[in-house]
Amino acid sequence: MRNALISALVLSSGVAFISLETHADEGQWQPYQMPSIADKLSERGIDIPAKQLADLTQYPMNAVVGLGYCTASFVSPQGLVVTNHHCAYSAIQYNSKTEHNYIADGFLATSKIDEPSAGPNERLYITEAVTDVSDRVTQGLSQEPLARYQEIQSNRKSLIKSCESDDNYRCSVRSFHSGLEYYLIKQLIIRDVRLVYAPPKSVGAFGGDIDNYEYPRHAGDFTFLRAYVGKDGQPAAYSKDNVPFEPKSYLKINADGVKAGDGVFVAGYPGSTSRYRLTSELKFASDWLYPTLASRYQLRIDTIETMGNSNHEIELKYAGTLASMANRMKKYNGLLDGFKATDIAGIKQSREDGFKQWLATDKTYQTYQAKFDQLELLLTKKRVDNQTRYYFENAQSSALLAAANKLYRLSKEKVKPDAEREEGYQERDMKMFKARLKRIDSSFDASVDKALWQQDLQAYIAQEHRVAALDNMLNYVDESVTLSDKLAGLYSLTSLTDKDKRLAWMDAKAGDFETSADPFIRLAVALFDTNMAQEKDKKTLAGQLSQARPDYMKAIIAYYKANDWPVYPDANGTLRITYGMVDGYQSKDALYKQPFTRLEGITAKHTGLAPFNAPQKVLDAIKEQRFGSHKVASVIKDPSTWLCRLFSCYKPEEFNSVPVNFLSSVDTTGGNSGSPVFNGKGDLVGLNFDSTYEAITKDWFFNPTITRAVHVDFRYILWMMDEVDHADNLIAELDLVRN
Amino acid sequence: MRNALISALVLSSGVAFISLETHADEGQWQPYQMPSIADKLSERGIDIPAKQLADLTQYPMNAVVGLGYCTASFVSPQGLVVTNHHCAYSAIQYNSKTEHNYIADGFLATSKIDEPSAGPNERLYITEAVTDVSDRVTQGLSQEPLARYQEIQSNRKSLIKSCESDDNYRCSVRSFHSGLEYYLIKQLIIRDVRLVYAPPKSVGAFGGDIDNYEYPRHAGDFTFLRAYVGKDGQPAAYSKDNVPFEPKSYLKINADGVKAGDGVFVAGYPGSTSRYRLTSELKFASDWLYPTLASRYQLRIDTIETMGNSNHEIELKYAGTLASMANRMKKYNGLLDGFKATDIAGIKQSREDGFKQWLATDKTYQTYQAKFDQLELLLTKKRVDNQTRYYFENAQSSALLAAANKLYRLSKEKVKPDAEREEGYQERDMKMFKARLKRIDSSFDASVDKALWQQDLQAYIAQEHRVAALDNMLNYVDESVTLSDKLAGLYSLTSLTDKDKRLAWMDAKAGDFETSADPFIRLAVALFDTNMAQEKDKKTLAGQLSQARPDYMKAIIAYYKANDWPVYPDANGTLRITYGMVDGYQSKDALYKQPFTRLEGITAKHTGLAPFNAPQKVLDAIKEQRFGSHKVASVIKDPSTWLCRLFSCYKPEEFNSVPVNFLSSVDTTGGNSGSPVFNGKGDLVGLNFDSTYEAITKDWFFNPTITRAVHVDFRYILWMMDEVDHADNLIAELDLVRN
Repeated sequence: MRNALISALVLSSGVAFISLETHADEGQWQPYQMPSIADKLSERGIDIPAKQLADLTQYPMNAVVGLGYCTASFVSPQGLVVTNHHCAYSAIQYNSKTEHNYIADGFLATSKIDEPSAGPNERLYITEAVTDVSDRVTQGLSQEPLARYQEIQSNRKSLIKSCESDDNYRCSVRSFHSGLEYYLIKQLIIRDVRLVYAPPKSVGAFGGDIDNYEYPRHAGDFTFLRAYVGKDGQPAAYSKDNVPFEPKSYLKINADGVKAGDGVFVAGYPGSTSRYRLTSELKFASDWLYPTLASRYQLRIDTIETMGNSNHEIELKYAGTLASMANRMKKYNGLLDGFKATDIAGIKQSREDGFKQWLATDKTYQTYQAKFDQLELLLTKKRVDNQTRYYFENAQSSALLAAANKLYRLSKEKVKPDAEREEGYQERDMKMFKARLKRIDSSFDASVDKALWQQDLQAYIAQEHRVAALDNMLNYVDESVTLSDKLAGLYSLTSLTDKDKRLAWMDAKAGDFETSADPFIRLAVALFDTNMAQEKDKKTLAGQLSQARPDYMKAIIAYYKANDWPVYPDANGTLRITYGMVDGYQSKDALYKQPFTRLEGITAKHTGLAPFNAPQKVLDAIKEQRFGSHKVASVIKDPSTWLCRLFSCYKPEEFNSVPVNFLSSVDTTGGNSGSPVFNGKGDLVGLNFDSTYEAITKDWFFNPTITRAVHVDFRYILWMMDEVDHADNLIAELDLVRN
Repeated sequence: MRNALISALVLSSGVAFISLETHADEGQWQPYQMPSIADKLSERGIDIPAKQLADLTQYPMNAVVGLGYCTASFVSPQGLVVTNHHCAYSAIQYNSKTEHNYIADGFLATSKIDEPSAGPNERLYITEAVTDVSDRVTQGLSQEPLARYQEIQSNRKSLIKSCESDDNYRCSVRSFHSGLEYYLIKQLIIRDVRLVYAPPKSVGAFGGDIDNYEYPRHAGDFTFLRAYVGKDGQPAAYSKDNVPFEPKSYLKINADGVKAGDGVFVAGYPGSTSRYRLTSELKFASDWLYPTLASRYQLRIDTIETMGNSNHEIELKYAGTLASMANRMKKYNGLLDGFKATDIAGIKQSREDGFKQWLATDKTYQTYQAKFDQLELLLTKKRVDNQTRYYFENAQSSALLAAANKLYRLSKEKVKPDAEREEGYQERDMKMFKARLKRIDSSFDASVDKALWQQDLQAYIAQEHRVAALDNMLNYVDESVTLSDKLAGLYSLTSLTDKDKRLAWMDAKAGDFETSADPFIRLAVALFDTNMAQEKDKKTLAGQLSQARPDYMKAIIAYYKANDWPVYPDANGTLRITYGMVDGYQSKDALYKQPFTRLEGITAKHTGLAPFNAPQKVLDAIKEQRFGSHKVASVIKDPSTWLCRLFSCYKPEEFNSVPVNFLSSVDTTGGNSGSPVFNGKGDLVGLNFDSTYEAITKDWFFNPTITRAVHVDFRYILWMMDEVDHADNLIAELDLVRN
């Protein structure tokens, strides 16, 4: 709190120091590491024992679950789960019909009987064990790069195979610190997930794409699901007879929330960061990769929008694709703007210079300078390869060609013993393989696929790195025929647009492909050798890097430790904990963004037009200053809440409104969506759902002055449940506490 | 300071109360009123005696001067004057030639010999006396409205005539409280004004139209001029032999500036406010007048922009017109947005309801309810008249027709004795009359004039309130000819586009007009009777209001005083003082604007493209953190500034940069541009130059939570003079002090 006070005083006098004290609150920690930062947690007022946080079998970590692409948590003894609205979007969409549009109107099951399946592919993953298997993956590896790569893969696959003892578990072997360490992750899979309560999109995604990555923010980005299992308590596919899952723990929800300066922590599954990457890698990304990707994305967005404008069916089919592209574009723009605003390459370079100086003097690591140089050489090769292959890879962007490529590859892999097959082509992958092949239709239109592919082919033709097999196809009928006409011919002759015919190829043999007249299959066969050769090159380089990167990481970790800087592995989709403080930030000169937004901000943004079309019931409750009722108060255990019982339940005394979203300095990234935000005692106080525009570069560099994550305040969720939607049945299930 | 601290704490915890405690710091006070608010000034830490502020012959008020449209102040014993860059824009433009573009590059005279004339029309007005002449204007007036109106005008004119004893004085009689009081203002006129120092437009108007009315702001909106007089010390027209004017006082400049929470006051010439207007008048403005004006303006802007895009000459000629229209549009939009954001009509209505209740019970004013009803009746008539005449008045918008109208009117007025002529047509007005007739050419293009006029005529034709004289003209050749062709005929036949021929009409007799074949002159003659009849109606209504409004004001002032609310007259272009506090504000939910901006904000906004094209010399000084040098330090009297001498002069210790612009809660409006901003001791610390977007509605209603004025921090001006432009000669002239 003292820090918050000081920064408040400083800011109110128009004064703020933009410091680059780079390590405050930085870190996406592996749970086992928590005891090593116990002091820092205490300093932030996080009192729950670090040792408890390290234990995945204890509260609160055993209540944190993965959705595969997002994070969620158990909040009742009957398997009730809360996550972001945007994480549960497909579950809501799956249940929306013409007669009941849950996307537009929201959904509330008033009893368990009314809870529909969230869809056949929805899963909850509960991480039960994380085991260090570094030795078993990396011991006794060959020096020859390709063999080394294959051995690592083979070791991983055999670890996974023995871990996945039954269908109820999913296992994976993840690389940490770029191959310096490997961990085996064992997760229980819940396969019957149901939809319980979702607000309308106009609450869950209030502000939509416009507010995405922005702050001040007013999104009610939450949805409740429920985990079901068979009567025997074991995971099972959806069945009417299934019963709610009883989690080992469920989170307490603190209806008093947090205030500015309070310590908070977040647990979840962050996807990917590049904090330990070299300056040369950052420069490649900022100077070539992101601008190149962004301009291709913009072209694709423009094409889809133009075609969608004159064809409603296309508009609907590509709505999801467009939304995710818009999100990606905003991310690219944020990265590029961020690199302009802060000289991150310069900061990294000076840190790297310090590292090199240290290398030269450190007794243990003196010899690593050569390894470092070797790594730079390999990375230079990687960059050249990337640029060389970029247009050829894009030239295979047609969804039909991609399917044909995968199907032909499958026919080649299937003849191998399962353990020797490429990842993605093993028996354990076949269900997902099939699901993906089926799913193509839902976001595919031949005319759009052709237009996008044609753009990529034109870009390919315009550059020098050509592949004969593809060039032959482009000219295969008659040079006088335009590219557009040639492609039209391909689409008119293929049968891959037919789902059943497409799926039937899963059982075909390589020879069937090689004699097929389907033009996409023929093209896949023609490109196969080139693709395989490139894959072999990549694997060889990966094999070389599997030696060079861990060496580099060993040295840089030693350097960080010598400087007393935090050492945690880059995000890799595994369970992590990050801590920080509820805090605003200096967005621009003289522009300070405060840590909490309030209900009245919804009314101020409301225009009636999406995405600023708050439901009338919400606007009415705000206008009438109904800040919370007796319904929650009646189930709050602490009798000192009599004031709340009489007046308002979700309105902090000094705040005069209900907090909607809030900011904290925790260190998150994509995959942390839906992550529980805890107060210092380990009570749930919010859901993570976004980060600010200025913070997008945090994937490369954590700048504590501007890096803020955006959370839904649980008081807003409770207010929606209680005051707006009267979800009394669900409130009764929650374990509500007060400070 | 305590208030600032509290608000800072409140804000940092994400909490802010949007209160409507409506009277804090409100008021554009007549200097004589200052002793009546002495307590409030003390509370704000303004220690200079209120009695001293009331005395126009004492420091600091005798150093405050008017520019006619802006405010300025003396800052050296040799007549050096500082005002806004945008107030001195025409002086800079007047001196810019192809070989030296002072607009683009700025200008600095390193000695007095190099100070060029600011132009023949530049004037400085020093208010020497303000005398209450209410009795002499309003005693013994007729009851008949038109006679009453004429008598008031006649009384004013005779007071002005006797006051303007010689050419060195300009006098005016201004109405206060809508005619309840009248004051005679006597101003010394300085006629030889010279340009001394102006930064480049890229500093003076950094951010341009985009940042206009916005904050955070980074404009170096300042320029130095110098007043010259004849060797006898008397005002004189420009002559090489003139000498610098020695003002009675000149302002001390405090190089330590102010900080958040400090009390400040501002003296200047605010133009116009409508705070005492009735709710019905506000509603008319917000519901009809502003939207109607805004849509016409937008149409005009679009037309000029379109025509300018394909014609560079038009673009240049209308640049100034467009800029002022863009400014006006932003003001209209700000008004309309402000009325949407805050229910000002509701607030005024409830205050009016309170007033009516009070009227019913107050012994003295019980009978005023009927007067109040009578006023509402007159205002209703005024609104109907406004709407009825609106399109006809616009239908005379051609600059040529407007000139013809004025010239024909002049021929009619000239035959009367001078004292009986209409204001604007007296001998004292002839110089300005001629200057305006000349000036038309600089911003006139016949094709644009025609296009804009045609739009107005089309709008006139489309509505029902038609005037036969105009309709006849529109049909005067042949109904089958299009409006455009008819107008083209007018423009091809007129000689008013010829400046000399236009000016020659000033000496013509009415009969010359009546027999002229010039189509614009003919139209002016044809419309004359209608215009005069409408003017007579207006004067009659003004005569009625000259009785009803003062009655209303008498009662409302009594009501305000009974409530202990501040009572000050609406702004009317006369000298006023306003006080307040250096303070940020809550711009939107969770978005707090801090009171000071800093140099680094310039760099952050800089794109290299106007209006965000800061000069390299400024960017370099910022990059090198050169925050001020020994040059100022050497002339600062206080020896305790040794630290400053060694390090940085304009960088507050806790701030780590030079403050550029700052906000305060003073109550300003248009005309306050260039006004000196004083600290509590009466030292100059900044120049007022704008107000924030959210504050635009303050012309109708002062909302203390969002009303902020924007000032240039004098530390930034000193930094520009010292560190960037090395204006050592000028710095040596200034009376620099430290806290």
